[in-house]
Amino acid sequence: MSGRSGDDRRVQILDAARVCFGRFGFHGASMHQICREAGMSPGALYRYFPSKESIIAAIAADERVEALEILRTLSVEAPLVDRIVALCMAYLGGVKARGHGALMVEICVESIRNSALGRQFHEVECGVRDAVKVALTEASARGEIDPALDVEMALTVLFSIGDGLVLRMQLEPEFDLARLEPYVRRTVQGLLGGS
Amino acid sequence: MSGRSGDDRRVQILDAARVCFGRFGFHGASMHQICREAGMSPGALYRYFPSKESIIAAIAADERVEALEILRTLSVEAPLVDRIVALCMAYLGGVKARGHGALMVEICVESIRNSALGRQFHEVECGVRDAVKVALTEASARGEIDPALDVEMALTVLFSIGDGLVLRMQLEPEFDLARLEPYVRRTVQGLLGGS
Repeated sequence: MSGRSGDDRRVQILDAARVCFGRFGFHGASMHQICREAGMSPGALYRYFPSKESIIAAIAADERVEALEILRTLSVEAPLVDRIVALCMAYLGGVKARGHGALMVEICVESIRNSALGRQFHEVECGVRDAVKVALTEASARGEIDPALDVEMALTVLFSIGDGLVLRMQLEPEFDLARLEPYVRRTVQGLLGGS
Repeated sequence: MSGRSGDDRRVQILDAARVCFGRFGFHGASMHQICREAGMSPGALYRYFPSKESIIAAIAADERVEALEILRTLSVEAPLVDRIVALCMAYLGGVKARGHGALMVEICVESIRNSALGRQFHEVECGVRDAVKVALTEASARGEIDPALDVEMALTVLFSIGDGLVLRMQLEPEFDLARLEPYVRRTVQGLLGGS
């Protein structure tokens, strides 16, 4: 018995791949680098993932699971601004805790390129955006946010803030997430208006 | 007389290089691709720029000039929020008008990597940040913005919004800059508080 299950190995490979993709990009990183980062032989790694593409697809699937997890912050009973701020902080906290910042920036860049690779991740974001759109539309209908707001424009600005903060976390290593929340709250409150 | 001055040629090469760097990255783009995009022979191009590094340095110098131009929005007589919104819209409008969105994303990625290449551009941003910091600190001292705000945190969020909007312009080709201003205003007003 080697002491590591297949699931552990899988996680180990995906973690190593995330480091390599964050550092060298999806296109720049090689299977050889991923093997070295995972401390595994190519033979062992290929038993789990036959190609770089299959690793990327598995990371996209993990992103979908994490997105659903984070979206639970939207379905609690609370004012909309509280729920949006909680969503944003859960997202940023998750990215930071898992050390996925560089990977998220690379995902952003690849989404912009609108490649087949990028679209796998862009679809995850679209799912999150749809869920936030429902929450904003409902809040607008009951007058909780300024009903004059264009929901699509508000979504665009909200997602800009989220993307921008992930970028900033990478640019400023001293970035203090614990102190950020009231600033995000002021910003979201200002954007969405209402009481 | 060929009809194109040396300055025109220089602009032509830098424009071509920006397209190539936006599309393939600073590391991915080759001098050969830049020549092709500029419609020039390597011999003609090398007369102006002996290396890819010298092209990148010239682009960074242009960014410095553009940053100084945009910073003029800060020195007019107007409420701080108006000046910050004008700065943000001038930045986004300039990036969009010149088609530099993909290049700005690549600059962001390279700044994060903290390479010598990235630092040339990061220094330009630091100059802008310093100027905005002075404006925020002065506005805070005279009570125009919430004096309880931590100026550094507010700067971090402001720059996140700017970076995030540039990313978003690239992600959403239908992005309508003309309709964005009131949304940026609400966001900045919410963040900075005051009257």
